[in-house]
Amino acid sequence: MSEDVAFLGLGVMGGPMAGHLAAAGHRVTVYNRTATKAQAWLSRCGGAAAATPAEAARSARFVFSCVGGDDDLRAVTVGQDGAFPAMQPGAVFVDHTTTSAEVAREVAEQARSNGLGFLDAPIAGGEPGALQGALSIMVGGDAGAFEQAAPLLKVYGRSVLHMGPVGTGQLTKMVNQICATGIIASLAEGLSFAERAGLDGDKVIELISNGSAASWQVGNRAKPMLQRDFSAGGAVGLLHKDLGICLEEAARTGTSLPVVELVRSYYETFVDRGEGKLDAACLIDLFNGKSGGAG
Amino acid sequence: MSEDVAFLGLGVMGGPMAGHLAAAGHRVTVYNRTATKAQAWLSRCGGAAAATPAEAARSARFVFSCVGGDDDLRAVTVGQDGAFPAMQPGAVFVDHTTTSAEVAREVAEQARSNGLGFLDAPIAGGEPGALQGALSIMVGGDAGAFEQAAPLLKVYGRSVLHMGPVGTGQLTKMVNQICATGIIASLAEGLSFAERAGLDGDKVIELISNGSAASWQVGNRAKPMLQRDFSAGGAVGLLHKDLGICLEEAARTGTSLPVVELVRSYYETFVDRGEGKLDAACLIDLFNGKSGGAG
Repeated sequence: MSEDVAFLGLGVMGGPMAGHLAAAGHRVTVYNRTATKAQAWLSRCGGAAAATPAEAARSARFVFSCVGGDDDLRAVTVGQDGAFPAMQPGAVFVDHTTTSAEVAREVAEQARSNGLGFLDAPIAGGEPGALQGALSIMVGGDAGAFEQAAPLLKVYGRSVLHMGPVGTGQLTKMVNQICATGIIASLAEGLSFAERAGLDGDKVIELISNGSAASWQVGNRAKPMLQRDFSAGGAVGLLHKDLGICLEEAARTGTSLPVVELVRSYYETFVDRGEGKLDAACLIDLFNGKSGGAG
Repeated sequence: MSEDVAFLGLGVMGGPMAGHLAAAGHRVTVYNRTATKAQAWLSRCGGAAAATPAEAARSARFVFSCVGGDDDLRAVTVGQDGAFPAMQPGAVFVDHTTTSAEVAREVAEQARSNGLGFLDAPIAGGEPGALQGALSIMVGGDAGAFEQAAPLLKVYGRSVLHMGPVGTGQLTKMVNQICATGIIASLAEGLSFAERAGLDGDKVIELISNGSAASWQVGNRAKPMLQRDFSAGGAVGLLHKDLGICLEEAARTGTSLPVVELVRSYYETFVDRGEGKLDAACLIDLFNGKSGGAG
């Protein structure tokens, strides 16, 4: 069934996701803070562009967002020209942003008081997953709203699972971030060790890509680490923020996250230096004495 | 070309590796400390069994070993009835055991004085890799010996790479162990967090198996963690020993390994309690307060 939908936020992830909806025959109206990005998307994918979230959302049965963080989510929903007041009663807002569980609950409450459905639906799978329409989508919120939105989510999701009430999508994404943290840090330690031992880095990467050390990170971040290319999109500043949220939630449930605490302190070193935009691959420079951060 | 070879040590890894050599048409004589294991191997794979490493190695052009650690390697090479004095001049000894780089250099020196070649050739890929003949083999030692042995190693190795002089195979394996360490620890933290947040563990595993947290460990150790099944073969006691060797080598080259140090202290908690045989999946019980180890 072809639906009227809106997509707010056409970044590295949102752009391809909205594109898959258009390719599947849905009528997509897009909004992006930087309007030139929306125009570029239109020229590739068709559809329509709107000047504000409210205008994009007005006639949509489903509104999707994939924006920067807590404050950006507030802005596109309940801020000036936000989507919520403009949406039709019974329409569903699906947020793909990684936020705190708290803001998910807060915004869901606002949706409810506007007569709208709300799902927190963060994603995993990175840019390749978005391009191939093979993302993991971890969804919190009302089961009825999930049932309605699921066929659309499956357009770009390979695993689309309902985790429980609102906020549980974000909690599941936190598990993802916690697990990724130690992988990145120990990859940086391992490659730093390899360099100091004089080993051929490319051979090391090939050999450890099989078996107990194999990971998405070794496939995607090991070569940038060795090449000191810190230009990819996994900014340490954002990860530092995400891990802070994880630690707050963990404190609430009595879980200790010592590796997360340790690695967050390394990210903080970069944030404190004003280098928060570097990709997390930069951790490699902490472990071989070049930057002195990890002693 | 069909070769006379010997294989010392028929454990979880060595058994299938020796089996692949026999299946490829080589004449394999096996030795195992527990003789019943050698008999079981013979009934599956054919070949011959010997009562001592010396007897197994006597007429072999290549002798392979896959034993427990430094002392076991010394025992089967230069110990009583060890292989070295019995081997033909010019024959090559290939050790698949994970050892220190130091013992690799020491045993290689003994091989040289016996007129033999020696390669340190630890492996990655786990039991599935051994069964499928798809291991990573990281080889240190003389390039000529490597060229001779490589066709045999490729019988069970998917990536077979010469890393440099003797010891560099072990150094590469250390990189593997360092990288795996943080993956296991943060997986334990993440799943502990998930349990405390009341999330469905199986759904969490499915969702994080795609993207930045994806790893061999999540595919192989996550379910045992959730089920508190610590019976698999990655004993914390052995990992504790391996990481000790990694830290010694790192100190030599001026690399800091803070995640390794932290996680090794957790492994130590289990070793100190006499629980060193538990699989590393047991780390999950440190992070949710059940065992109190990680505060």
